[in-house]
Amino acid sequence: MLELLSEHACFGGVQRFYRHASATIGLPMRFSVYLPPGQGRGAGPIPALVYLAGLTCTEETFMIKAGAQRLAAEHGIALLAPDTSPRGANLPGEADSWDFGVGAGFYLDATEAPWSRHYRMESYVTGELVPLAQAEFGLDAARTGIFGHSMGGHGALVLALRHPGLFASVSAFAPIAAPTQCPWGVKAFTGYLGANRQRWQSHDASALMAGMKKPYADGILIDQGLADRFLAEQLHPEQFEAACARAGQPLTLRRHPGYDHGYYFISTFMADHMAHHAGILRRS
Amino acid sequence: MLELLSEHACFGGVQRFYRHASATIGLPMRFSVYLPPGQGRGAGPIPALVYLAGLTCTEETFMIKAGAQRLAAEHGIALLAPDTSPRGANLPGEADSWDFGVGAGFYLDATEAPWSRHYRMESYVTGELVPLAQAEFGLDAARTGIFGHSMGGHGALVLALRHPGLFASVSAFAPIAAPTQCPWGVKAFTGYLGANRQRWQSHDASALMAGMKKPYADGILIDQGLADRFLAEQLHPEQFEAACARAGQPLTLRRHPGYDHGYYFISTFMADHMAHHAGILRRS
Repeated sequence: MLELLSEHACFGGVQRFYRHASATIGLPMRFSVYLPPGQGRGAGPIPALVYLAGLTCTEETFMIKAGAQRLAAEHGIALLAPDTSPRGANLPGEADSWDFGVGAGFYLDATEAPWSRHYRMESYVTGELVPLAQAEFGLDAARTGIFGHSMGGHGALVLALRHPGLFASVSAFAPIAAPTQCPWGVKAFTGYLGANRQRWQSHDASALMAGMKKPYADGILIDQGLADRFLAEQLHPEQFEAACARAGQPLTLRRHPGYDHGYYFISTFMADHMAHHAGILRRS
Repeated sequence: MLELLSEHACFGGVQRFYRHASATIGLPMRFSVYLPPGQGRGAGPIPALVYLAGLTCTEETFMIKAGAQRLAAEHGIALLAPDTSPRGANLPGEADSWDFGVGAGFYLDATEAPWSRHYRMESYVTGELVPLAQAEFGLDAARTGIFGHSMGGHGALVLALRHPGLFASVSAFAPIAAPTQCPWGVKAFTGYLGANRQRWQSHDASALMAGMKKPYADGILIDQGLADRFLAEQLHPEQFEAACARAGQPLTLRRHPGYDHGYYFISTFMADHMAHHAGILRRS
């Protein structure tokens, strides 16, 4: 029941945009997929990367701005990107803030009314979209990685840590690495999960990692720009770094002078992230 | 008198967006520039490429969507992109059509009222923006090429043919190659240049080329998608091909099955265009 909205030849493969009626969300959802060249009869299942975008983005942002298709074509990896929240729920205040509600689903399942009915992005991505895409496009369930940016970097790290069987590799660009300790995260978690901060811990990458033992033995890659205006207040990669040290988790955290929070930064280091995932997925 | 609107580190160089009061246009104009790494004291003037975007685009489109900065960094070439029209002229009807007026300046100097006061994109690009950028950023006047897409492909070909001393190399993606013979061109030329079709000829790449002798001896590169929905009615690359044959002009016109009119197509073949220009500019 996928509705193909558009498709575009791209680096020998195909870029597609879809809409579907999501049972998890209870609303139509859009997503994008890039399929590399060389697929089809006898080619076997395709290794894949799920990309989670940041605040205010859509399923289009990554495909338009990141320059990843060239690399996906070279590595023979598919790309899958969901939207960043439900749309059309028509909840009071859903579009009042750019950092909460529409465009800001934070990749978790809300427990608080009125959000809990539709804002179920964790279950949507892990339980519906990824399995659907694996079945529909022949993506390889055993060779699927996840990455993302900012709110989507938080999503990638947290979903990878909460669903280690689902994702073989993980990386992030400028992730919200300790959301329980920054204004974006406190606002989102209060609204979606309620005031009890204890319940927030299992949605905080740094808190989750601190209680684990090397969950991604092949390593995690994070790139962070040092001219990122959100770094000091919102991102806290040093918290995740400390948690990885405690967990014995190999982490490559690269700090880049001069780079900011946007897609000019992301596109610059996209090749390194694609190579990180390709190296791990190749061995999976 | 340039106002820096934003700057972003990108592939070791810097992406900048500017606004300035244009004497030619008589209004503020925006443009973007990418400067590759390795510039500065003693590095000498920088070879440069001017990119002209298509209908509805702005000075941002190419820098966001085309994936050119990576290649510009590798080749050591600067990128310069103007907006696609004056903005803020407040002429009657200027925003009624997506293919005329705002976002659709067609890179020519209008002769008809009320457009002739501000819609002077040819003089703006060739007489103001390119010299300004050469002076301001140390771009090399002897090693400047031009390329573009659709309306901007028309612009690149026509400006290159009308100003051969200004541009050492030229290429285009899906250009409007014979505007006097397609609805977009007829509408624009009627509005900007008046009803006398004789005056249109000197703004039509195919008509211009037919009267020349091999103006770009190093060759012209054009890529065209065969799934481009504008190909049959609006673009007419075969007219430019025939004119090049008549002029003895070396032309590489590549027709790509499956590719459409958008930036997924452009980004796919961007590396070939950058290599085309770099090869010529290196020898200039």
